[in-house]
Amino acid sequence: MFVIVVYDFNEKRVAKALKICRKYLHWVQNSVFEGEISQANYVKLKAELSRLIDPEEDSVVFYIFRTKRYSKREEMGLKKGGDENIL
Amino acid sequence: MFVIVVYDFNEKRVAKALKICRKYLHWVQNSVFEGEISQANYVKLKAELSRLIDPEEDSVVFYIFRTKRYSKREEMGLKKGGDENIL
Repeated sequence: MFVIVVYDFNEKRVAKALKICRKYLHWVQNSVFEGEISQANYVKLKAELSRLIDPEEDSVVFYIFRTKRYSKREEMGLKKGGDENIL
Repeated sequence: MFVIVVYDFNEKRVAKALKICRKYLHWVQNSVFEGEISQANYVKLKAELSRLIDPEEDSVVFYIFRTKRYSKREEMGLKKGGDENIL
């Protein structure tokens, strides 16, 4: 399956959140990640984030798609995704 | 078409960015918006955001889908989307 993950973590935890997400997904920009992921790894990703998250301060949204790809991605402004988003 | 928009604006401009996106889309959480949008309105949305954005500081990612809906959305932690995200 294909997922898009968007998070908003307090700066105390954001570096760890980035590290966790990069283990499983491609870093698109800022707090946005995407990629093909197995169901097993998706469960692991959520488990790792749920151990990190402070539910009073942080939030994560997961979009799960059966189809492999969105039609199109467009970007505006600053790019922070690094080289790894060139697939 | 169906779009997901994720932005990261400097706090000086974030209130305006929120206002622009809410004109066209549903506020999901934090900096995440989604919704059905016509091609004409999508062009307007991008034009308004491009007038606001400081490309040295801010960024926006647009995911465009031909199909009406993602398979599933899951959330973790804080919800900031307000009532309007109950479709």
